[in-house]
Amino acid sequence: MEDKHMLMIPGPTPVPEKVLKALGTHPIGHRSGDFSKIIAEINDNLKWLHQTKNEVLSLNVSGTGAMEAGMINFLSPGDRVLVGVNGKFGDRWAQICEVFGIQTERITSDWGTPLDPEEFKTALEADTNKEIKAVVITHSETSAGVLNDLETINKYVKAHGEALIIVDAVTSLGAYNVPVDDWGLDVVASGSQKGYMIPPGLGFISVSDKAWKAYETSKFPRFYMDLGKYKKANAKNSTPFTPPINLMFGLQTALQMMQREGLENIFTRHQRLTNATRAAATAMGLSLFAPDDAASTAVTAIRTDDAEAIRTTMRQKYDIALAGGQDHLKGKIFRVGHLGFISDRDVIMTIGCLEATLTELGHDFEPKSGTKAAAAALV
Amino acid sequence: MEDKHMLMIPGPTPVPEKVLKALGTHPIGHRSGDFSKIIAEINDNLKWLHQTKNEVLSLNVSGTGAMEAGMINFLSPGDRVLVGVNGKFGDRWAQICEVFGIQTERITSDWGTPLDPEEFKTALEADTNKEIKAVVITHSETSAGVLNDLETINKYVKAHGEALIIVDAVTSLGAYNVPVDDWGLDVVASGSQKGYMIPPGLGFISVSDKAWKAYETSKFPRFYMDLGKYKKANAKNSTPFTPPINLMFGLQTALQMMQREGLENIFTRHQRLTNATRAAATAMGLSLFAPDDAASTAVTAIRTDDAEAIRTTMRQKYDIALAGGQDHLKGKIFRVGHLGFISDRDVIMTIGCLEATLTELGHDFEPKSGTKAAAAALV
Repeated sequence: MEDKHMLMIPGPTPVPEKVLKALGTHPIGHRSGDFSKIIAEINDNLKWLHQTKNEVLSLNVSGTGAMEAGMINFLSPGDRVLVGVNGKFGDRWAQICEVFGIQTERITSDWGTPLDPEEFKTALEADTNKEIKAVVITHSETSAGVLNDLETINKYVKAHGEALIIVDAVTSLGAYNVPVDDWGLDVVASGSQKGYMIPPGLGFISVSDKAWKAYETSKFPRFYMDLGKYKKANAKNSTPFTPPINLMFGLQTALQMMQREGLENIFTRHQRLTNATRAAATAMGLSLFAPDDAASTAVTAIRTDDAEAIRTTMRQKYDIALAGGQDHLKGKIFRVGHLGFISDRDVIMTIGCLEATLTELGHDFEPKSGTKAAAAALV
Repeated sequence: MEDKHMLMIPGPTPVPEKVLKALGTHPIGHRSGDFSKIIAEINDNLKWLHQTKNEVLSLNVSGTGAMEAGMINFLSPGDRVLVGVNGKFGDRWAQICEVFGIQTERITSDWGTPLDPEEFKTALEADTNKEIKAVVITHSETSAGVLNDLETINKYVKAHGEALIIVDAVTSLGAYNVPVDDWGLDVVASGSQKGYMIPPGLGFISVSDKAWKAYETSKFPRFYMDLGKYKKANAKNSTPFTPPINLMFGLQTALQMMQREGLENIFTRHQRLTNATRAAATAMGLSLFAPDDAASTAVTAIRTDDAEAIRTTMRQKYDIALAGGQDHLKGKIFRVGHLGFISDRDVIMTIGCLEATLTELGHDFEPKSGTKAAAAALV
């Protein structure tokens, strides 16, 4: 049905009406006093969301752009880094390092299996010459619905003392507790079309003092992605280049909504939606791709050979978009997003339609077991 | 008066209601068939706007990002380039080249004076070893309201045979005739918040076959800005990274509006608005910063010692935003934008308010001479 589209994918995520209205507002000059005030408010609220006193910089780039900026501003050609790879995005960060001539050591696990923190411990403890300059971790690996144990890995990075921790928090920030200062995270990258509840187009990077020290000696040429320029402009509530003004109107509104909901409530909601989705999938006889203790709170990956048939029926009959598998998982899994502006109702609705779809496709399970399990988990 | 703000600056430019509504639409998945159709339509219409068969790539970056991508994808460290510098933006492109270790020769003229094509001819003819890999030209230098003679400079580049012509068309595309194929322009960069009539956040780059050949041997590391990835994705009506979906909704609508108006009409309108603004300024005894035969059709710079007082009164009393001077021209000039979604009525209104402002500030000129001259030029 036209215009009845519902996004249950891990990005873009649904956008609240208030934010859509803000997006559709006449732009004002980005060098005006009025816009400076908006930047000041956004910067304060970004720090609140990141639970940090660090500078949080806003760039006119996608999440990949934010991660690239988060690496090339603090490293130099030939530097040695460890990159955790257990999905498409971890693999992408390793590729970027390689393209930029960084010595890249991949610490891998299968897609669907969390990274083993002990492997990082071993590699970091073996590095007695302190050659490892950074450890790059995808917190929530969107391609597999896996939440990596950033907290533990980061403890080993801190014990190493020299290496920076560079975090892809694209689908964890705003969906899971990422206490930047408490954990001492150096570089944390995220993107607007995820927990932020606004359309894509803005990337965010929080930068610690330790990372800024590394910036001083970093040797990659850069201009548009030179974070020093953003820091300098931020201090004057400005931007080095023309910012995406209307997206920032949307961001301002979305951050206000998030503040009204409160951080703890946001995290609890995402955990509840995750629990409900997983309980329902299991009750309907489906196989969860990630283990319970490493489940992303942004997206649940479900393994089934008729993944594409399920997605097609859900889209065509119920106007619900689910994500498919990527690369070698194409057709093997489907992924239910429950990230950002998603309520209990949205999950119940999705599970209800999934029950009908599975029944139509000949899956054998107890009728209504999915919605029953979801509802029980949502209490 | 609240919400009565009127942008008469060279970017961001006013956005039509239809485009604002498109911006405020619920996003859809960027990997969906429906979004592919939008990309296909946009790509066709971008080619129409650029008057080219070349690929026109859309990046989630500002105009500066587009220009950086337009240089680092086709050059290598140590390459020799000529950069025309007669304003803030030409200077910025030279800075980017220097940051990336490109041998940068600046061909300069004073801000407000067009670049001298003969200087390019001399430098290019002297380069018998064909070491010059590119000539970088800011077509409309926004900081000074000067239109450089791209057509003539480009002829000398073509006579050289080896060098690419890389063009900043940020405030000329959609405001002045830039026939990419007729002139054989290799790389043409532009930005959404200008002639395109949408808010900032998208950069565009058209790339010739000759430039793609140079891409093959270009040696700068890049990932997010790797135009080869965009070309490959474009061929499948896709994007390599998450695109700014809502801005692309706006772009789709704006390009449809531009097609209905027609290219010739768009150029004629911008010329008419420019003539009217300049005639009015002269009639009111103000001094034009750029000569008639090198007047930008996007923005008119006006020299007067009370530039800031004029801007303040225009903003506070009439809710009209004018641009100030940049760098050493701060306080020395003000700039009236007449770019994008600007009609005859907007210019008459601006001139009327400028008359009142000048009178209030004690300028001595014949009453109503500004609006009279503007109206005469608009016939």
